[in-house]
Amino acid sequence: MGLLLVLDRGRPVPLHAQIFEGIRTLILTGQLAAGHRLPSTRELAETLQVSRNTARLAYDRLAAEGYIEARHGAATRVAVQVPDTTFRAVHTARDVRTPPAAPAASPDATTAFDAELQDIFEDEALRWDFALGRPDAQAFPARTWQELTADTLADPEMRAALTRYGDPAGFLPLREAIAQQLAATRGLRVSPTQVMIVAGSQEGLHLACRLTCDATRSTGIEDPCYQGALYLFRSLRCSVVGIPVDDGGVCVDRLPPEGFALLYVTPSHQYPTGATLPLERRLALLEWAQRSSSLIVEDDYDSDFRYDGPPLTALAGLDPYGRVLYLGTFSKSLGPGLRIGYLVVPPWLAQRARTALGLMTGGHELLSQAVLARLLASGRFESHLRRLRRRYNERRLRLVAELRRHLGPVDLAGAEAGLHLAWRLPADWPTAEQLRRRAVAAGVGVYSTRSGGSAELQTSAAHKRTVTLGFSSLAPEAIGAAVARLAEVCGAGRGSGACARDLPAHVHPDGH
Amino acid sequence: MGLLLVLDRGRPVPLHAQIFEGIRTLILTGQLAAGHRLPSTRELAETLQVSRNTARLAYDRLAAEGYIEARHGAATRVAVQVPDTTFRAVHTARDVRTPPAAPAASPDATTAFDAELQDIFEDEALRWDFALGRPDAQAFPARTWQELTADTLADPEMRAALTRYGDPAGFLPLREAIAQQLAATRGLRVSPTQVMIVAGSQEGLHLACRLTCDATRSTGIEDPCYQGALYLFRSLRCSVVGIPVDDGGVCVDRLPPEGFALLYVTPSHQYPTGATLPLERRLALLEWAQRSSSLIVEDDYDSDFRYDGPPLTALAGLDPYGRVLYLGTFSKSLGPGLRIGYLVVPPWLAQRARTALGLMTGGHELLSQAVLARLLASGRFESHLRRLRRRYNERRLRLVAELRRHLGPVDLAGAEAGLHLAWRLPADWPTAEQLRRRAVAAGVGVYSTRSGGSAELQTSAAHKRTVTLGFSSLAPEAIGAAVARLAEVCGAGRGSGACARDLPAHVHPDGH
Repeated sequence: MGLLLVLDRGRPVPLHAQIFEGIRTLILTGQLAAGHRLPSTRELAETLQVSRNTARLAYDRLAAEGYIEARHGAATRVAVQVPDTTFRAVHTARDVRTPPAAPAASPDATTAFDAELQDIFEDEALRWDFALGRPDAQAFPARTWQELTADTLADPEMRAALTRYGDPAGFLPLREAIAQQLAATRGLRVSPTQVMIVAGSQEGLHLACRLTCDATRSTGIEDPCYQGALYLFRSLRCSVVGIPVDDGGVCVDRLPPEGFALLYVTPSHQYPTGATLPLERRLALLEWAQRSSSLIVEDDYDSDFRYDGPPLTALAGLDPYGRVLYLGTFSKSLGPGLRIGYLVVPPWLAQRARTALGLMTGGHELLSQAVLARLLASGRFESHLRRLRRRYNERRLRLVAELRRHLGPVDLAGAEAGLHLAWRLPADWPTAEQLRRRAVAAGVGVYSTRSGGSAELQTSAAHKRTVTLGFSSLAPEAIGAAVARLAEVCGAGRGSGACARDLPAHVHPDGH
Repeated sequence: MGLLLVLDRGRPVPLHAQIFEGIRTLILTGQLAAGHRLPSTRELAETLQVSRNTARLAYDRLAAEGYIEARHGAATRVAVQVPDTTFRAVHTARDVRTPPAAPAASPDATTAFDAELQDIFEDEALRWDFALGRPDAQAFPARTWQELTADTLADPEMRAALTRYGDPAGFLPLREAIAQQLAATRGLRVSPTQVMIVAGSQEGLHLACRLTCDATRSTGIEDPCYQGALYLFRSLRCSVVGIPVDDGGVCVDRLPPEGFALLYVTPSHQYPTGATLPLERRLALLEWAQRSSSLIVEDDYDSDFRYDGPPLTALAGLDPYGRVLYLGTFSKSLGPGLRIGYLVVPPWLAQRARTALGLMTGGHELLSQAVLARLLASGRFESHLRRLRRRYNERRLRLVAELRRHLGPVDLAGAEAGLHLAWRLPADWPTAEQLRRRAVAAGVGVYSTRSGGSAELQTSAAHKRTVTLGFSSLAPEAIGAAVARLAEVCGAGRGSGACARDLPAHVHPDGH
């Protein structure tokens, strides 16, 4: 007898697997009854025009799983009893396009995790996108990376290391190189054992939360803030308190005396307002942390890029109490696609952080760590950074110049560092959110403190007039064209339109 | 005047940074008083034998951070007031070898995370290590990987992608390739949108926990089990219930009617006992999950390697209820160093899983995902697997043969699949743990169900006599020598010694 089986030679699924699934379906749906005699592998091979071996493979597997019984010599037959339940198995297994709804009977399972996620993908509708924190599309040093990958794979010890479990805290030579870099550029003297390699700032922040947050205390965050931090805290069921941000960064005088399990701050270049936290506030922050037995995570996301003057010592570099966790990333200097960042923890937390990483991920991909370690040790990372700084500085200056040219003496902040600046709109202009909408409609991506990568907790209205623009991913010419378009949107540039009226008399040339 | 500064030209820290730190220290420790006149950059350069520019860089940074005041034309002076607090900053910043103790005043911070971690590093003391789940040190396909890395980096679209944030759930072509592979080899038909790329099984399990566990319900685990799962559950403060394992795998009749938030199982090749869960138990498990509204995570950690007969359909492939999360990894086939695994979630969980990954890590390193996608699509992964299967099968057969040759008709289980087998000791032999200690002392690494990568919750004593041996990382000759040594340890092989007495009459040749 023949079997009604349709094989699709176009499908990526091997024929023996298709035969297995087909016969299994016929059995489970009752079209082949228990004890029913099946064709021999020769017959089957002929019927289906497949090799004898293909047919045998399918039968072997059906037998191994108890669907059929193949006694040597005797005929192959459908197994005597197959439980009813598997009937339904077939349908879901076959039709993934109509998935079963969330198990209604399992509210716990469906409510255990619930959170928001912002998508940082590019908006196709935008002709020009002043995206925040996005490197130049040409920025990745592909040739160097490939070279160093070859060097790394040429090392038998490294090839062997890829077949083993490594230190979940990261590849030691990379941690050493990072510790050296931090001493040289951030006034931060740490042991490599304090440096935890993570999948970008996001995992570093997640690690910081796992180490510090529990149900008994609130967490604090800047307002406005980096959205990924706010959403992460909420997803961990932490109660989150927003601390207002002004022109000097986070308002330390607004910190609660009872403290936080963890406070998230961006002292070098507040995200998104661009403010730099002055020394006095840094010291006050450390005192508050000690007084209130709080811990602080300092996200130093873009300190590789400082155009006016040298970088400031990191908050962690001033911390006498072992209360600051320092977050660094290579997402801005090399690219978010690498997912390499690091969390520097105080010595007393180092062992615990390593344990947490071992349980959370088992550590980061080794090859890219080894390549990056070579890049840092070779000094080629520094020259790569210098090239990038020149490129981004040119774009920064172009953006500032174009804004002034088209919109007059604009009030800008945070332009001295990082990959974006903040433009404070005059009081009688539309709000930042209104301007953003108009701009997007005209194909220009600019951001308010509640869009893009940032979020608000509404503790202050001051930022309703703050528009942020990232300049790192747009070529100078594009910046020129984009600002011209933006000016049209504002009705300015041609000296007409609501936006242009009464530009503020007092302006800060570039945020100082 | 001169300054007492010692520069170490051997240190990787640039001279300007050393000068900055040195003067900052002198100021913060009061050795340079407020208002004190500092040497000009020329004087400083001469005193310290550095370039004028180096001195200027140091002063610029000191001024930028408010430590000194440099008025144009006038002399440079120490800033008028620097807060006392920073005194202590210097010490911790300078001396990382005497870290401050955990902040005593901050019990929350110090108890928020507390967990165990087993180290899977090699034990140097072992001459032969039958390590479980460790690939052959030569297994990584370095040349192919390097080739495909070059191809990937040659693609401008991929280079640009490295500079952007991608889908946290993973690189789509890789997810598609995995979905196809699962259909062909595991009887699992899923949409690529259900496939989440994670940093190995460990992150996959962590993701599963984040999605399903909450304080209101217990979690279940096989006993004995994979240690990384038990420790992870505990670190998440889940109450963990052990379900006994017998020769047929996890005892489904011992599952609690009220169910679990999540049950962790290894049906293909129970870790560490090697048992394969029969079809009946698989179906019963699914029924139980539906009845008790529980979710199951199926860890299919080593199903790439099956030597006798084709692989079984995964539990997830039989699941009609959308209650099974399927965990796969490339750690066995390529190497743990890559940290690439995947969690296949039911359709109703896909969006939530993607969100969770976005907040936990932002996704996995892109380059290795792209290279792996090419490896899978090119069919070269399949041939790599075939080569490895041949190699490991040879080692498996050698291990079985040597054990029989030196120790007689030993009772082995789980040898038909995976990278390790279980040896059940006769009742009158020392326990597995005792044998393990003796073997380790003799330089041979074998494991009990409470050592290496596994753990016990003591729900059954049956496993006190189970010794596990991994055969994938030892060459055949080494296996021969190691088993000979092991036999000496047992006092067997020469037909003498306590261990050799009364070998059991009834033996299972290879676990069937």
